Amino acid sequence: MEMNAVVLHGPRDIRVERKPRPTILKADDAIVRVRYAGICGSELHPYRGHQKTTYGHIMGHEFTGIVDQVGSNVATVKPGDLVVGLFSSACLNCWFCKYGYTNRCANSLALGTAQIDGGQAEYVRVPHADGTLVIAPPNINDELLIMMSDIFPTGYYGAMRAISYFGTEPNKLSSTNGALQMVRQPLKSTVFVCLGCGIVGLCAVMTAVVKGAGTVFCVDTIPDRLEQAQKMGGTPLRLGVDDIHAIVLKATEGRGADAVIESVGNQAALKMAMELLRPCGLLSSVGFHQTEMPFTALQGYQKNISLNMGRAPVKAVFEEALELFTLHQAMFTNFISHRLRLAEAAKGYEMFESQEARKVLLQVSD
Amino acid sequence: MEMNAVVLHGPRDIRVERKPRPTILKADDAIVRVRYAGICGSELHPYRGHQKTTYGHIMGHEFTGIVDQVGSNVATVKPGDLVVGLFSSACLNCWFCKYGYTNRCANSLALGTAQIDGGQAEYVRVPHADGTLVIAPPNINDELLIMMSDIFPTGYYGAMRAISYFGTEPNKLSSTNGALQMVRQPLKSTVFVCLGCGIVGLCAVMTAVVKGAGTVFCVDTIPDRLEQAQKMGGTPLRLGVDDIHAIVLKATEGRGADAVIESVGNQAALKMAMELLRPCGLLSSVGFHQTEMPFTALQGYQKNISLNMGRAPVKAVFEEALELFTLHQAMFTNFISHRLRLAEAAKGYEMFESQEARKVLLQVSD
Repeated sequence: MEMNAVVLHGPRDIRVERKPRPTILKADDAIVRVRYAGICGSELHPYRGHQKTTYGHIMGHEFTGIVDQVGSNVATVKPGDLVVGLFSSACLNCWFCKYGYTNRCANSLALGTAQIDGGQAEYVRVPHADGTLVIAPPNINDELLIMMSDIFPTGYYGAMRAISYFGTEPNKLSSTNGALQMVRQPLKSTVFVCLGCGIVGLCAVMTAVVKGAGTVFCVDTIPDRLEQAQKMGGTPLRLGVDDIHAIVLKATEGRGADAVIESVGNQAALKMAMELLRPCGLLSSVGFHQTEMPFTALQGYQKNISLNMGRAPVKAVFEEALELFTLHQAMFTNFISHRLRLAEAAKGYEMFESQEARKVLLQVSD
Repeated sequence: MEMNAVVLHGPRDIRVERKPRPTILKADDAIVRVRYAGICGSELHPYRGHQKTTYGHIMGHEFTGIVDQVGSNVATVKPGDLVVGLFSSACLNCWFCKYGYTNRCANSLALGTAQIDGGQAEYVRVPHADGTLVIAPPNINDELLIMMSDIFPTGYYGAMRAISYFGTEPNKLSSTNGALQMVRQPLKSTVFVCLGCGIVGLCAVMTAVVKGAGTVFCVDTIPDRLEQAQKMGGTPLRLGVDDIHAIVLKATEGRGADAVIESVGNQAALKMAMELLRPCGLLSSVGFHQTEMPFTALQGYQKNISLNMGRAPVKAVFEEALELFTLHQAMFTNFISHRLRLAEAAKGYEMFESQEARKVLLQVSD
């Protein structure tokens, strides 16, 4: 049996074509009949040809749908369940999964890459189904559910690394000789910068604001994104217009930002993040980087930097992220700016790349 | 009035010469009559001429002694007190000091640099005396006390950043759908690598072992250092002899070290630290680095690295470090390998640079 699927054949060459319908290959596989599939910002890297890749596989790592079949070892989902798929599979059995590092699952397969066909198709084979599919909670908008594949947990994770760096309670630090009572900086006094207000960045903004960061500066070039960030409680700063360094320094008596959450994924952004950060601050980078480090080891030493990089452990943070997302999903109502049919995928990629669209949802089945 | 003092006049040009005795210049100054002064590994950078510096100032940022005079605002020490001086001054009043970032005190002066004369002299002027001098605890060996200036708190801090990354209790992480109970990796199962077993590295080894890290691999080229590390409970690995990568991988089922504590301060060490680290591991670097970063942003992303760099907040961690040091000071009895008079300082630098000496103590007064 065949189905329609979105295939990348080369830079900017997206085609919707007939492909064999996937079948169960392993006992922990599931087949999902896709309902919605998202186009993710990270897919623009291979789309533009910036990222070394092979061509010819089915794209997509954000999807929701109805479970169609399950392998004999699948325990947590069954045919008929409405599920959301996580962007990278988690086997739940390896050392990394056991300790919550599901972002580095030793057996993980990245959906929508040469490793395994993705979800921009009528059906998708999902490996490690118990670790990769989650049954849709009853109280989530069925379109917004797709944000739980990657976008929201990634932004949430980027922000929470910064939030937990400060903690939510001011703690007494050690003091000596009674000369000083040192305390931990209260979260409500902190100044965060979210560099990049694409949809992941906006999820980070929302998380930082709701979790109690004092000021959340939001940096982007696109007015529409900055408006969204402002609605969420962020303070918008327009790159190329506002003097961002001066504003952040002024807001911090010259120190720099307490934390910078970077979700852009290019060298200029990582460099700017470092420059905006105060000494002993936290740089939380969830952007995908392919270049050299844009600062020296001397600069890192002199700034006493704390740096976290890399993708989110979506499975490990799913429950806590979902709780926050469910409470505040109303903030995201307008995020899906364009709904297209699967057959219109090429147009969807074009609109998303040209930043006409905030988020493109492919409606695959009803 | 004059005194004898150790002055660096150029690469490898150490002279003991007559200098004016310092006097109180500010209300929070103290004058200390120096008893012991240490030569620190970080002083070898200007000594060798690797580090841009000016010449002509009095060297030394590790010292103990008796308070001779205090300015009118000094509250916590008085003439006659036996004190230890911390390697960088902490004003206790700025934003950074208040929140425990005494390593980045906004008013800090680095003793023994062009900023302010150091402690390798008969007398030293100590700025911000309340934040920079600590009264000697009664139960510490008076020679070993000098290790609390810089060495022990620095190694302690480097190790504790790694220890606290894991925590001392296995915590439940969130799980979803009942498919898996994820837990935090137990500290006792961790594999640490201490890169560099100079005296700071050995303090890190001791801290990591005592605080409960599972295996603490200790890497150096010098057999004497590795013997010390082994006595402290570390597992010695000799650089250039042992296949360190293979041994660490074997001990971790191919994953790499959970944490690497780097105290060497050169690019090769930082590169090796990154290579030995497992995905989602912690790299705690207390070495002083002056080069480019030896890994790319892509490598950082792909390893999901957590990186901490920079010098220790000695004042902020002093009490907790002192408690540990006092309990375990017997381990350090043999650390001071050479005791010289101040007049022999040039010989002391030579011996320390050529690694003949483990630690050189200059005895300045009785």
